Amino acid sequence: MPLVRIDALASRPGRLEALGRAVHEALIETLGIPPDDHFQILTAHDGTRSTLRYGDYLDVARDEGIVYVAITLRAGRTPDRKRALYRRIAELAEEYAGTEPRNVFVALTENGPADWSLGNGGAQYVGA
Amino acid sequence: MPLVRIDALASRPGRLEALGRAVHEALIETLGIPPDDHFQILTAHDGTRSTLRYGDYLDVARDEGIVYVAITLRAGRTPDRKRALYRRIAELAEEYAGTEPRNVFVALTENGPADWSLGNGGAQYVGA
Amino acid sequence: MPLVRIDALASRPGRLEALGRAVHEALIETLGIPPDDHFQILTAHDGTRSTLRYGDYLDVARDEGIVYVAITLRAGRTPDRKRALYRRIAELAEEYAGTEPRNVFVALTENGPADWSLGNGGAQYVGA
Repeated sequence: MPLVRIDALASRPGRLEALGRAVHEALIETLGIPPDDHFQILTAHDGTRSTLRYGDYLDVARDEGIVYVAITLRAGRTPDRKRALYRRIAELAEEYAGTEPRNVFVALTENGPADWSLGNGGAQYVGA
Repeated sequence: MPLVRIDALASRPGRLEALGRAVHEALIETLGIPPDDHFQILTAHDGTRSTLRYGDYLDVARDEGIVYVAITLRAGRTPDRKRALYRRIAELAEEYAGTEPRNVFVALTENGPADWSLGNGGAQYVGA
Repeated sequence: MPLVRIDALASRPGRLEALGRAVHEALIETLGIPPDDHFQILTAHDGTRSTLRYGDYLDVARDEGIVYVAITLRAGRTPDRKRALYRRIAELAEEYAGTEPRNVFVALTENGPADWSLGNGGAQYVGA
């Protein structure tokens, strides 16, 4: 169910895929998402036609390695679970993609069980 | 008011437009959205610079025909209305775009009346 | 903290950057966002591979100058603050980017303090 958008500036081939893998494994490990519950939109921005902006808010020195991870998921995870998720995304983004933790930005948006259709025109989390 | 994002992998010309039409007509038919309340961001991903990931979660066999439909709308629709919306999006996506229902993924995010500005710097749903 | 997505059709160079600046300054002026709290994803659509759709809903005559501004932010701003934000975005989009106010569309999505990780794997708004 989580729908994940990852936006980064274009760089070496394979980085975006590695970031996608990092976020997906972090979701599995920390929130118990099933491995095949894998839904991602991965975009590398060319820096001209489309681009990213970032500041040093909270004294974090960000640079062009910035990665925006936006996750839509059902409400119900505790702050502790979310904290674990953020920590693991940052760790795996560094391990798999060489992205420094200071450049990993995550925002969650929660919705309800009736807000998902996972194929075949159904509303699977509320039946039918 | 609904703001609709549709993301698919690039394929034959016209598919994205057909998907946009399918979602828009489904919103009109099932939620009573006015026909000119039509706000969509349609993106075809090239599969390299930007791409989509998907799994077979809930035993739905998805493939590169996957379509992500993300709709932001005001809170207040019942689960039954949402269920009707999903069913109709899947039907029309197949009819207009040849997209199989198993490949149609929809996620809704709700907000409130003060969360919209529909032009001219106004907050039309709360006055002024 | 606000994460801002701006989507427009490709036009003259610099327009997207000007729109980003307009939205950022409006957030600073009306919501009191710190200047370095600057997180944006700016996309110019080519009109073929990716594109925008729009209608004349509420009798606003929109055209290919349409700009979609989607802002994710923590809950808590009053309708009055949001109203001020919309007004200022429209004013500055016109001043900086030459975009007519009728073409400025804004949607907000709110979340909670635990829904943000602003780098280093932390959950800064809830501690640690």
